[in-house]
Amino acid sequence: MVVSPDWIAVDWGTTRLRVWAMRGATVIEARSSDKGMGQLSPDGFQPALLELVSDWLDTRPPVIACGMVGARTGWAEADYRSVPCPPLDPARATRPPVSDPRLDVHILPGLSQIDPPDVMRGEETQIAGFLAEQPDFDGTLCLPGTHCKWVRIADGAVQGFHTFMTGEVYSLIARQSVLRLTIGDAQPDAVAFLEAAAQALANPDLCHAGLFPLRAAALLNGLDAAQGAGRLSGLLIGAELAAARPLWLDRRTVIIGAPELAALYQRALAQAGADAVQMDGAALVLAGLTAARAAITRTT
Amino acid sequence: MVVSPDWIAVDWGTTRLRVWAMRGATVIEARSSDKGMGQLSPDGFQPALLELVSDWLDTRPPVIACGMVGARTGWAEADYRSVPCPPLDPARATRPPVSDPRLDVHILPGLSQIDPPDVMRGEETQIAGFLAEQPDFDGTLCLPGTHCKWVRIADGAVQGFHTFMTGEVYSLIARQSVLRLTIGDAQPDAVAFLEAAAQALANPDLCHAGLFPLRAAALLNGLDAAQGAGRLSGLLIGAELAAARPLWLDRRTVIIGAPELAALYQRALAQAGADAVQMDGAALVLAGLTAARAAITRTT
Repeated sequence: MVVSPDWIAVDWGTTRLRVWAMRGATVIEARSSDKGMGQLSPDGFQPALLELVSDWLDTRPPVIACGMVGARTGWAEADYRSVPCPPLDPARATRPPVSDPRLDVHILPGLSQIDPPDVMRGEETQIAGFLAEQPDFDGTLCLPGTHCKWVRIADGAVQGFHTFMTGEVYSLIARQSVLRLTIGDAQPDAVAFLEAAAQALANPDLCHAGLFPLRAAALLNGLDAAQGAGRLSGLLIGAELAAARPLWLDRRTVIIGAPELAALYQRALAQAGADAVQMDGAALVLAGLTAARAAITRTT
Repeated sequence: MVVSPDWIAVDWGTTRLRVWAMRGATVIEARSSDKGMGQLSPDGFQPALLELVSDWLDTRPPVIACGMVGARTGWAEADYRSVPCPPLDPARATRPPVSDPRLDVHILPGLSQIDPPDVMRGEETQIAGFLAEQPDFDGTLCLPGTHCKWVRIADGAVQGFHTFMTGEVYSLIARQSVLRLTIGDAQPDAVAFLEAAAQALANPDLCHAGLFPLRAAALLNGLDAAQGAGRLSGLLIGAELAAARPLWLDRRTVIIGAPELAALYQRALAQAGADAVQMDGAALVLAGLTAARAAITRTT
């Protein structure tokens, strides 16, 4: 059976490339590879894309892409649009250089903020997917991951945002610092996580001052790896919640991300008295790309 | 000329092995190698030591060693002595297994603290060297490095201490996180350092919340590598000073460490209104080992 999509959706992040053959808002077929932007040089993007979609291109369907593919070190640098603004403006998509005439690629712009300086690439498309479902949402979206984004939403627009390097810092400290001897790849203990999160929410400097005590507690008191992982995760997320407090206190808050990680944030917020709703982010990227596709159809 | 020391001083840390042939408190000869504890398995210690000292052993002089050589993963695990206590008790030195009969090795114990949990190995010997010169000191010693120790001293004893992983965290974030694209191996700009240190001293959660903005400022505002390095160093050291405030506020404070790093701490403290004295740590290890040698002579 020949697949003949009327457009192709692409989520191209640092570590993964995911593509969907689409007819309107319906997925005909989904494929993925590990050819993320992080491992490709500029001339590697077209071949990596063709590897997954070359049999979908007979009718030259538009390819709508979001994510780090549009970074300065990606395929072609896409714009940053300055907040406050709606999450998407497909008219400002970047067209990367292609040599295969069947390719018609649009890389969606990211978002930037002047003060404090911040940028995002990819999450704006998830946000657009969320707003397509809940256009009147007024509150905060929390998108945890390697980098966690806290995003203030009102009037259908991103009003401001703040990125925390929590996932990346966790991974470096747990796996490469002296705490690797204590934590390594252990999964966080839930009780230790919540206790440490509450302590760091009250005393944010514990995310720095509380690190070496984990090693000492392992040497002196037999703190085990799961407890160490839970405490480290709790210290970092607790300090993040402290700094992000104006974004979640007395606001509607929705956490969008991988279920296990999102659950950690939800439990830490609940302990601080904030009810946050949890949503899986995977479907929202596609909803956002679909919204972008509809806008491109209208404007070209 | 045959060197015939009456004892041998050894500073054996994670990355370096340094030895001195001693006559009383006088250095006859100094040698070193890169055979730090971090790269040796238990049966590698004796050969690494013999490589440097085998021609000094004719009279079987005592070898007095401090540092990570006494860690659980070192040559032989030395005790931890629980604070409050004087920094040294050579009578509790550990004798590692040796097969060469000319070797008479004593590994000095480290220090531990129950609450908050903390440990040190090596710095206690520098502290002893400092107290040999200033036995009546009442105040705080700050020993920056890969891990920075803040040590409260009174009555000739260590009353308590707190270790911060500042140097190690700096290195991981500057060289391995996404900020490597912004900072790498750049040397910290002094103005950016002081500005960020003041901000983090006032708002310690900036040591976490202020990280990603460095990447964004490089992308949006052209923040250069030296400014990025200065800001990162300032955020981490500023947050450390905030957490350590009870240890330096209105107390005599002496910073013991490598001159460039010690100067960063001194300037950040001066900006916060605290006059700290700076001392080079290298000579203090030897003074502490010399004090330990004298005590061993008395007790054996």
